[in-house]
Amino acid sequence: MSASTALLTDRYELTMLDAALRDGTAQRRCVFELFGRRLSGGRRFGVAAGQGRLMTLLREFRFGADELRFLSDNRVVSASTLTYLENYRFTGSISGYREGELYFPGSPLLTIEGTFADAVILETLALSVMNHDSAIATAAARMSIAAGGRPLSEMGSRRAHEHAAVAAARAAYIAGFTATSNLEAGREWGVPTMGTAAHAWTLLHDTEEDAFRSQVASLGAETTLLIDTYDIAEGVRTAVRVAGPHLGGVRIDSGDLPLVAADVRQQLDDLGNPDTTITVTSDLDEYAIAALAASPVDAYGVGTSLVTGSGYPTASLVYKIVARESASGEWIPVTKTAEGKKSQGGWKQAFRRVENGRATEEVIRTASSPDAVLQPVPEGSRALNVSYVANGTFDGAYEGAAGVAAARAHHADVRAEMPTRALALSKSDPAIPTIYLTS
Amino acid sequence: MSASTALLTDRYELTMLDAALRDGTAQRRCVFELFGRRLSGGRRFGVAAGQGRLMTLLREFRFGADELRFLSDNRVVSASTLTYLENYRFTGSISGYREGELYFPGSPLLTIEGTFADAVILETLALSVMNHDSAIATAAARMSIAAGGRPLSEMGSRRAHEHAAVAAARAAYIAGFTATSNLEAGREWGVPTMGTAAHAWTLLHDTEEDAFRSQVASLGAETTLLIDTYDIAEGVRTAVRVAGPHLGGVRIDSGDLPLVAADVRQQLDDLGNPDTTITVTSDLDEYAIAALAASPVDAYGVGTSLVTGSGYPTASLVYKIVARESASGEWIPVTKTAEGKKSQGGWKQAFRRVENGRATEEVIRTASSPDAVLQPVPEGSRALNVSYVANGTFDGAYEGAAGVAAARAHHADVRAEMPTRALALSKSDPAIPTIYLTS
Repeated sequence: MSASTALLTDRYELTMLDAALRDGTAQRRCVFELFGRRLSGGRRFGVAAGQGRLMTLLREFRFGADELRFLSDNRVVSASTLTYLENYRFTGSISGYREGELYFPGSPLLTIEGTFADAVILETLALSVMNHDSAIATAAARMSIAAGGRPLSEMGSRRAHEHAAVAAARAAYIAGFTATSNLEAGREWGVPTMGTAAHAWTLLHDTEEDAFRSQVASLGAETTLLIDTYDIAEGVRTAVRVAGPHLGGVRIDSGDLPLVAADVRQQLDDLGNPDTTITVTSDLDEYAIAALAASPVDAYGVGTSLVTGSGYPTASLVYKIVARESASGEWIPVTKTAEGKKSQGGWKQAFRRVENGRATEEVIRTASSPDAVLQPVPEGSRALNVSYVANGTFDGAYEGAAGVAAARAHHADVRAEMPTRALALSKSDPAIPTIYLTS
Repeated sequence: MSASTALLTDRYELTMLDAALRDGTAQRRCVFELFGRRLSGGRRFGVAAGQGRLMTLLREFRFGADELRFLSDNRVVSASTLTYLENYRFTGSISGYREGELYFPGSPLLTIEGTFADAVILETLALSVMNHDSAIATAAARMSIAAGGRPLSEMGSRRAHEHAAVAAARAAYIAGFTATSNLEAGREWGVPTMGTAAHAWTLLHDTEEDAFRSQVASLGAETTLLIDTYDIAEGVRTAVRVAGPHLGGVRIDSGDLPLVAADVRQQLDDLGNPDTTITVTSDLDEYAIAALAASPVDAYGVGTSLVTGSGYPTASLVYKIVARESASGEWIPVTKTAEGKKSQGGWKQAFRRVENGRATEEVIRTASSPDAVLQPVPEGSRALNVSYVANGTFDGAYEGAAGVAAARAHHADVRAEMPTRALALSKSDPAIPTIYLTS
């Protein structure tokens, strides 16, 4: 895999660049915007995620010898465009919502300002990162709400592309998960890692007791033993006999979880293990987690439904040109006008109105030009945009493991600000309306 | 991103390894199997994909200084296990279905033989690759069936994680797609790349005519013009006026496609452009493609539904221990016996029975041990397993761009062998039954 991210791009972006360099429009200043027209699946909010990853990937958006050779061999662009790409550095500016921020229909998650040439070729990479990570973070936030204060671990790596899995673990942690099974997410993003044992561990040994004894010898009595390889009641008895009263936990990965969890809790209590926790992990999603709220479950592990966005594996965010200079240098707001898929042209500033500590509106102020005088933040509102890149200089504050930690804290803060109706799982309208103001 | 793939792994695999090295079971010979208990979504077949990628990734499954430091700093495993991992090379054997092959419930897609230590730590990476790529390939095959002979382009990169997008383009091509918009898939896997233009291209220019003139000047009259930024009928007139009778094609990305396609076809014919093709690209899935079979559409572009597996973004394949040696060196078939999630223990050989050129059964012969004498291929059957790794030596024949081309050809061959009922899109049972024979 190449270190350059430049070819993680749709071919038409480079052929448009090629034609624009030829006809002179490549140098027109433009504003592109990354936003969602609606929230997937009747959800009440979205969680914006991926910004920290994206900025790091954009630093590596360089056309090196390998990339240029491929484009040349396949006649994707002309020789003069190859020269342009060889020297390409993004020299524009990017501002947008903080990672972990909530969003609503029309929220301008990222605003990319620069020449057409600067901005058009970032479309695919920006959307890939933001669509994936936001889809996962949105599902994760709903699961985190359903789990209440109980710990929630991400265990879905095996059900996702191997690198998407790392990004998913990262996004889930930002949106409230406690830990991940994915070691690379631990290394690269500082997400706490955890794990128990697989059925293969028990099946490897001649008896379940042998397997438990070995695990306790290796990881201590505070480990979590998987008790459903053979008979669950027998598994619990064996676990307690082997590990004693200080057994950390048991994991249940099959069966009707409310019933099984209640039985196992009773059995553990009867055997003198009231402090041994119960972790459940079988095909959970936010609804199954919510249905276990009254059950004696101490922790959840979520796999498939997390990494697949619980039914909505992509956030349906789009990247659109919303304003550009004309031949005479005048700014013009632009938008597609054919039937369907309409959006709001013009440059935008976004605020969240907060009254008595509760968010009430997403306020978007539009202007025809990014050169418009910035309006002060309206009283009782919070500005939603921060600067990621200013005239080609990357800020860096939101990247790396520190960026993940900051995004997680920010998400917790802004989720706490939402009205109660935002926290329900059922399909509905967005939790707060989006209001447009024209400067 | 690290070149090593070793930490694309769930933490519990390494803690199980740690405990097994301590108790001596790490050296027990084992057979692990990668298979699906069922087909997702009532589909009639699955398409196995990812093997070529996986084998390349497994070559890079090495614990280098960075990986070991992370494991040590986080106390994931003991010092002696760190030493074991430092020297880890997979020395076992992997056989399995060819990439592009169809599969059914229970089909043993990959069989991994080696010590427990050898095989257990490959679980997450093997499943990540095969679950993602097989989900995409399966959806792609259904779309390819629905498209009949019409060209089918993959354009979904923006709706998937940036690296998953490359794997999705690759999997779609194997399962019958014609081309992709993703340039990295072209470079890395030899998938043909294609593209048209975005709405941003038209909106960048002062008029639609300016945009079309520039695109034709750059890409020739044989290019495909996007005609639905403003008014579609006007867009068609402008396109023909600008490009003339040899205009290659027009693309429609919105509206009620059967109606719009018919209108545009009529208009193109009336304007003297009977050879100008129509490409449609708006939120297509296999059902929408099938619904356009009688419409004058020449080519399809598919995005979101392809990269998200058309409702089933993961193939639900699992990686299970199915046989192991006991302390005395005797082979024992093993399987979880608690309620639910059952599977068939034992080592397996798989065949497809083919009568008069039509597949009739998936035949799986089980044995307690991989040392069992191999049975000859039954008459009228085709052996489904090939060798990927023999005692630590990678074959290499199925990797790289050549592997992709071979997988694509193989998929076409084996799909042609299926009974007609396999080709229907509606939910049903698997197209052929899975039969178990005991040696």
